[in-house]
Amino acid sequence: MDYQARTDDLWFLIDAVLGLPRELARLPAYAEVDADLMRQVLDESGKFVTEVIAPLNRVGDEQGARWQSGEVIMPDGFRDAYQAFWQAGWPALACDPQDGGQGLPTVLEATLYEMLSAANHGWTMAPGLLHGAYECIKHHASAELKDLYLKKVASGEWLATMCLTEPHAGSDLGLARTKAMPLPDGRHAISGSKIFISGGEHDLTDNIVHLVLARLPDAPPGPKGLSLFLVPKIDPQGRRLPVHCDRIEEKMGLHGSPTCAMRFDEAPGWIVGEPGKGLGAMFVMMNAARLHVALQGIGLLDAAWQKADAYARERRQMRAPGVPRSGQEADLIQDHPAVRRMLDTQRAWIDGGRWLAYRTALELDRAKRGTDAETKAHAQRWCALATPVLKSIFTQQAFEGASQCLQVLGGHGYVREWGIEQHVRDARVTMIYEGTNEIQAIDLLLRKVLADGGEGLHDLMQAELAALPHADPELSRRAQALQDLTRGIAQLQNQPRLPYELADDYLRGLGLWMLQLAWCHISARIDEWPEGERARWRSARLALQRWVLPEWEMRLGIMQAALHGNEETAG
Amino acid sequence: MDYQARTDDLWFLIDAVLGLPRELARLPAYAEVDADLMRQVLDESGKFVTEVIAPLNRVGDEQGARWQSGEVIMPDGFRDAYQAFWQAGWPALACDPQDGGQGLPTVLEATLYEMLSAANHGWTMAPGLLHGAYECIKHHASAELKDLYLKKVASGEWLATMCLTEPHAGSDLGLARTKAMPLPDGRHAISGSKIFISGGEHDLTDNIVHLVLARLPDAPPGPKGLSLFLVPKIDPQGRRLPVHCDRIEEKMGLHGSPTCAMRFDEAPGWIVGEPGKGLGAMFVMMNAARLHVALQGIGLLDAAWQKADAYARERRQMRAPGVPRSGQEADLIQDHPAVRRMLDTQRAWIDGGRWLAYRTALELDRAKRGTDAETKAHAQRWCALATPVLKSIFTQQAFEGASQCLQVLGGHGYVREWGIEQHVRDARVTMIYEGTNEIQAIDLLLRKVLADGGEGLHDLMQAELAALPHADPELSRRAQALQDLTRGIAQLQNQPRLPYELADDYLRGLGLWMLQLAWCHISARIDEWPEGERARWRSARLALQRWVLPEWEMRLGIMQAALHGNEETAG
Repeated sequence: MDYQARTDDLWFLIDAVLGLPRELARLPAYAEVDADLMRQVLDESGKFVTEVIAPLNRVGDEQGARWQSGEVIMPDGFRDAYQAFWQAGWPALACDPQDGGQGLPTVLEATLYEMLSAANHGWTMAPGLLHGAYECIKHHASAELKDLYLKKVASGEWLATMCLTEPHAGSDLGLARTKAMPLPDGRHAISGSKIFISGGEHDLTDNIVHLVLARLPDAPPGPKGLSLFLVPKIDPQGRRLPVHCDRIEEKMGLHGSPTCAMRFDEAPGWIVGEPGKGLGAMFVMMNAARLHVALQGIGLLDAAWQKADAYARERRQMRAPGVPRSGQEADLIQDHPAVRRMLDTQRAWIDGGRWLAYRTALELDRAKRGTDAETKAHAQRWCALATPVLKSIFTQQAFEGASQCLQVLGGHGYVREWGIEQHVRDARVTMIYEGTNEIQAIDLLLRKVLADGGEGLHDLMQAELAALPHADPELSRRAQALQDLTRGIAQLQNQPRLPYELADDYLRGLGLWMLQLAWCHISARIDEWPEGERARWRSARLALQRWVLPEWEMRLGIMQAALHGNEETAG
Repeated sequence: MDYQARTDDLWFLIDAVLGLPRELARLPAYAEVDADLMRQVLDESGKFVTEVIAPLNRVGDEQGARWQSGEVIMPDGFRDAYQAFWQAGWPALACDPQDGGQGLPTVLEATLYEMLSAANHGWTMAPGLLHGAYECIKHHASAELKDLYLKKVASGEWLATMCLTEPHAGSDLGLARTKAMPLPDGRHAISGSKIFISGGEHDLTDNIVHLVLARLPDAPPGPKGLSLFLVPKIDPQGRRLPVHCDRIEEKMGLHGSPTCAMRFDEAPGWIVGEPGKGLGAMFVMMNAARLHVALQGIGLLDAAWQKADAYARERRQMRAPGVPRSGQEADLIQDHPAVRRMLDTQRAWIDGGRWLAYRTALELDRAKRGTDAETKAHAQRWCALATPVLKSIFTQQAFEGASQCLQVLGGHGYVREWGIEQHVRDARVTMIYEGTNEIQAIDLLLRKVLADGGEGLHDLMQAELAALPHADPELSRRAQALQDLTRGIAQLQNQPRLPYELADDYLRGLGLWMLQLAWCHISARIDEWPEGERARWRSARLALQRWVLPEWEMRLGIMQAALHGNEETAG
């Protein structure tokens, strides 16, 4: 079965739980966006995803993108679907009207990409990079460059790439060696090799816009020597530039997305932003991309859950304990406790994840378009802290949870027929790209939390606790424990390795706290569902309490033991 | 890089830690087996694995087994390697000399299969099923049938299958419908469809011996109506029997092993054992197979670790905290805390897993060949309780730990080139076959532990605590807590679902206790390694304490909350 967008579930979180139409209406930019319009766009996007994109998932995996003498041929149907996608205006959903966009709230872009990723992760990689490129060009490019590229990238008529990684420079971009030599016309000739470039070459669009990190001749070594350049596949005069795709990688999954090794051979490009500020401009792209990756995780997990849930409602094996005898020779596997646990646990993650991701979309809009300083400050704190957390926890859960969904199908899960093993293979990469999950953890603890001694996190947590629909003593206690722990880490001296050793546990601890926060809000609204729908949400909440949140205590214990052990050693 | 058998590590556990040569010498059957002979066989098997089997791993994955009009063509090199394998006598290593075997201890079969699985999981599936078939024929077949098949199966000249699963009967074998109609010559005509039959058809050997569950005409429904039959591909008169391979499955991994859909079309076969006792006879095979699956998990995890460790010793990215500056532009990633943690954690599992698996091999020999009643009783308890635990925890760790090893390589782990993603895909099936891990948990708690109200587990734990090289208060405390918990579960009334709901946590809890037990024994001997080797073992022990064992408290908490919550509801 293909993934089916179930927009009622998404809308319940957007409207009843998060009250987004009301919250967004407070921002002047969205004064004309009401609930009806939002619901209509959501339903339309769900329809497009279900009808056009989902049916191409299997062919994307089995046929895959194919390299042929420097060209990349995409799987059957991919180009037509992409042309329909951009011509219907989907990429420009949240772009500014002055750039040809529709000026809709970010949450609608978020739900679109969650559903697209669930339906067809490989296909979705292509447009997924547009949004960061749009922001990057919009905020950093010269007026001349914007005239040439901004609207084409906003609309998605031309696709874009991020060319960062080099064979010897993966997580450590500061090691990048690609060179940019000045040309007489003000452009630069870019030379070097980039790897792991998603969509570096394909036949979806007539042009491809590459954003490339490279070094000017007089640049210092390390990250401060990197500048950003825009190099199109085809220049404004219609010339094919020397940007070559030398091969595409054979991967574990994501076969519908070509992962290209690119060679820039004195390819002329324009600088974007100031010399030496390339990494900063690129991080504009990376941050947008990280929320998208969290949404990929949520979508992939939901797609796997749909398959496992459907299977568990049909397959009968053995008698389930405590279930009244039916006339059938065996009971449905959904009534077996082990299967129930695997299914309900994923819903705790998916629904809590949606709340957190859509909430982050709201905060992105508030940070950009808010009018009062306090709201903006809180929004910026939320985005800074939540982005690495969501990227990490939902990509990990996409892989591990999809694997649990596979387990529901037993041997049938391991064979291709049901399609669930593809989700597990596809999901695995999300823990790596856009900064590995370990890098997210370091970003969170070292660069975000400890940068101000934990003050920002403290303020965020207190504000969130104050805004709960009902007080939750457990959530308050855990907030206090995390703040105490943070103080302990901030006071460490002469223990340079310890914060790095704690970073992964710290991220999980904060992530589980955020998941619990999400469910406090969801819980307060479950009764607004029709009677028949409530049971699933209640089971998910119970699964959260019984099987997900106990990890929080374990993480705290690991961190306290490390901190305490170190105090002893130091003292 | 291909897997390399490192027999020094295995021998340290076998000799210095477990003292197996000394322990085995107490059993009359192994009176002539000394340490030198064992070491020699171990080294020879490691050499064969490294030189002959490991180099075929990639071709097994990429070319895979191919179905062609009912025949199955194995990947290049597989047949030659298999012919060399059986002709060298490896399958018969632990078989009785009277059956043509070498009568060596089970632990040497265990290390052989651990290394084979690490080197090439797909290839190893073929001989992996021989051992259960050998035991099954030896203990249940008639003298006439043994004359025809026992020695050929013992030597591995002919390979064997277990034909259990049917499309509608996966974990619930009692639903099987395959029929056995009596024939005038005393044989039975077998008709029905079996799926997920590993090695159901191939070109490795000239004949294949199928052991098939089927129902006699007057058999009752359910598991008690199942009998076991032996159906050869080619009968003693040289006739090809109507046993057809209709297709092989497309799978997530394990491409080197054909997973066959088999159709028996009135194929004549002999009954093995008594009518209606088929499941019991088959369980002889399943139990042997389950320890092999645990060894597959340990082997696959070690193979993944070897690749990640090698990569981390070469790859440089960023400055590692607390490491003296080198002249290089970046530090080795093995010095980054997050990488160190992923690597060391896997060694805690691999080395503890080896101890547990080799110990189980010893107990299997004691149970079969022991001379005093107390030793035999303890051995039987150990095997009954440890088998489902080891199958589950080491297959889960194979998948999750191999995924962590993949993470060490970042994007390079996700592409095929390094071969580590194959281990993740291959490992995934081990959590499913030979009884899913959830079935193992039910087997452990419901059928093994609660069957005698927890008495057997209590006796086992007390005996193990008494035999520790040094007392470990933590291990004693945890044993006590598990015993108290077991009593609480045993006393439950009118809560038919609860033990099933606790089974997975219970298995993890006991598994972590056993892992800690293993490391108590290993720790006592670490100083016997040469100076340079000790650091790796110490790091693994630290990883166990810091990052693995905290899960134990989490599992206990989950179980106590469920038990307590239920008492409240019930009271």
